[in-house]
Amino acid sequence: MSWNRVAVVGAGLIKFGELHQQSFERMAAGALDAALAAVDKGMARAAIDFAVVATQRTTLWGHESISGNTLPSVLGLNGIACTRIENACPTGSDAFRIGAMAVASGVYDCVLVIGVEKMRDKSPDEGLLSRAATGHPIYQRGESAPALFAPFATRHMHEFGTTREMLASVAVKNHHNGALDPYAHFQNEVTAEQVLSGPPVCHPLHLLDCCPQTDGAAAAILVSAERAHEFTDKPVYVAGFAMASDHPWMHEKSSYLGFKATTLAAERAYRMAGLGPSDIDMAEVHDCFTITEILDIEDLGFVEKGKGGIASIEGETAIEGRIPINTSGGLLAKGHPIGATGVAQLTECWWQLRGEADERQVDIRHGNVLQHNVGGRGSGVAVVNILTTNVG
Amino acid sequence: MSWNRVAVVGAGLIKFGELHQQSFERMAAGALDAALAAVDKGMARAAIDFAVVATQRTTLWGHESISGNTLPSVLGLNGIACTRIENACPTGSDAFRIGAMAVASGVYDCVLVIGVEKMRDKSPDEGLLSRAATGHPIYQRGESAPALFAPFATRHMHEFGTTREMLASVAVKNHHNGALDPYAHFQNEVTAEQVLSGPPVCHPLHLLDCCPQTDGAAAAILVSAERAHEFTDKPVYVAGFAMASDHPWMHEKSSYLGFKATTLAAERAYRMAGLGPSDIDMAEVHDCFTITEILDIEDLGFVEKGKGGIASIEGETAIEGRIPINTSGGLLAKGHPIGATGVAQLTECWWQLRGEADERQVDIRHGNVLQHNVGGRGSGVAVVNILTTNVG
Repeated sequence: MSWNRVAVVGAGLIKFGELHQQSFERMAAGALDAALAAVDKGMARAAIDFAVVATQRTTLWGHESISGNTLPSVLGLNGIACTRIENACPTGSDAFRIGAMAVASGVYDCVLVIGVEKMRDKSPDEGLLSRAATGHPIYQRGESAPALFAPFATRHMHEFGTTREMLASVAVKNHHNGALDPYAHFQNEVTAEQVLSGPPVCHPLHLLDCCPQTDGAAAAILVSAERAHEFTDKPVYVAGFAMASDHPWMHEKSSYLGFKATTLAAERAYRMAGLGPSDIDMAEVHDCFTITEILDIEDLGFVEKGKGGIASIEGETAIEGRIPINTSGGLLAKGHPIGATGVAQLTECWWQLRGEADERQVDIRHGNVLQHNVGGRGSGVAVVNILTTNVG
Repeated sequence: MSWNRVAVVGAGLIKFGELHQQSFERMAAGALDAALAAVDKGMARAAIDFAVVATQRTTLWGHESISGNTLPSVLGLNGIACTRIENACPTGSDAFRIGAMAVASGVYDCVLVIGVEKMRDKSPDEGLLSRAATGHPIYQRGESAPALFAPFATRHMHEFGTTREMLASVAVKNHHNGALDPYAHFQNEVTAEQVLSGPPVCHPLHLLDCCPQTDGAAAAILVSAERAHEFTDKPVYVAGFAMASDHPWMHEKSSYLGFKATTLAAERAYRMAGLGPSDIDMAEVHDCFTITEILDIEDLGFVEKGKGGIASIEGETAIEGRIPINTSGGLLAKGHPIGATGVAQLTECWWQLRGEADERQVDIRHGNVLQHNVGGRGSGVAVVNILTTNVG
């Protein structure tokens, strides 16, 4: 395939947390301001001609179905094209992929990708996740997110000897990283003992094995690679992106030892980028639960299948490790405001490539970083985006 | 702008109506089968590598937020990339635009655009439109769809002398066309007298001035123009597409005499296509209410501002008229299953260009046709797509 290269010239987010005091629109405005402020040579708001809005479901006002296209007006972008993307947990990363194609197609010059999610403004009964699940009899029988991921953990333990201590090491690492990230929902360290002794949610996942429900917003600004130098002398390029689907229902899975959607998406993204796992300097991956990160690093090719737990507990995925994972704190500590999550992960990747990640900075050797989400009704969909500082 | 040309090599829909007996998935499968069956030289399902799913909100099962990415599995397309688009009433036409960019970018070879909407399976209190409206105090005070469009009608009447008889002529024409369309929800003629004497909904709109709530699904298959001849000897190309936003709230509108989002989107699409209104042979436009079609044909440049009512009652927009509008029956007679609407309109356009519209066939002189939707919270967003048989 041949496609016009795309550059990311700005990215930013608001501090994640319980943001009852901020409206959906205010959160989005904060993210846009942050992304514009990060454009080295400045960018006029009027340069933006298309906004891709990533929001899975906004609870505020109840206007879930028409929240995307009301944003241009309140963001000072009235008149531009604007499309809402919804794709379960990869909503934000998929919006980035769609935005990249819009620039690559030559149709749009400058695309804003903006992820916003309100997760905390309603009671748990009315909240995003519970309502996404209501209605279907299987969900009504308890097939919530922890129950969809826990069987992958027990199977991994059975097959590969993965332990709860190995799972806990993921939470310890990501909370450590989150404590270094001023945008993280949780900025406190946790100990392995705290993770292990926390209240059980769905065996073998306890409370700190699970990501929180968080409000947040993040934004990225894309232009064609040939125009990147109008906006920055430190351009970051989109090296590749891909998406894959898998059967959504648990009884249809071909294996509980990994996520087929991730494997497929990774293969495609690596091929598009002409890169492999050993070319990647760091990655932001989908750690909705501790087990998810362990499966991710295997499915993405960073460690051998079955070795994810050992690699985690031995520190290979720490900031100073062989392949740093979730330096931002990940979903476990930074939070998982669904539409914003992927865009926020990409912002961390962008900072890392530019050497702007402060105490979280990793050693950038190859100039390539990777971002990943998996989700849907039971890991039925995954997206992988790869960024680079290397001119293609 | 320069972009790779895109061809539409298949399109189709299921019969619209109250489809309680069909699941969301079954409706989608029917639309895909119809589109594949319409590919002249045949196409293997495996050729499709990306599906853009247009669905505003599915009520069945309550799985609104994750209905898009579960479709590949049930459509025999497991593994492919799949993205859900939501953009209020232009959801389907926007999905087509996104699909066209995905092909134009060179990233995907063959893209399925599939619109599906379940509108009838819940009680009115729980249905799509009422739930889209719940929560916000203005909606709770009755700012439903008829109330958002009626002020445009009264203002147009005040300013230009448009009459209820002129509005009614739109319903009479579209029901006449719908009676010729085997896919229309309503296949009966109505008289002006019936429209005028129907129960009032929101002055000056009476029942037959309003489109029904309808279940439906439609699909289109896009490939790069250079590959079109693998699939057909009668290729239809995408000449241009565009989208625009406007302030969503009624008190922010700059005028009640037209929809600014439509005007902007039309300007952009015509520019991209290198065409103007006089180059268009027929159009499918957004007639959620009779007044909407009158405003559309003005905003799209087919008639002078203020003359839409007269043009309608004088037959200029009939199948045999100067500029045939909504030959399929439009939203008023064919129905408006939101995610499916735009894709179904494009299917009618595709048939017209290929000379396959049977009794509804118009005289194709220039080889260009146009499709349009406007919507959102008060006409805050519009999409225009232009198809052509002319090689670019």
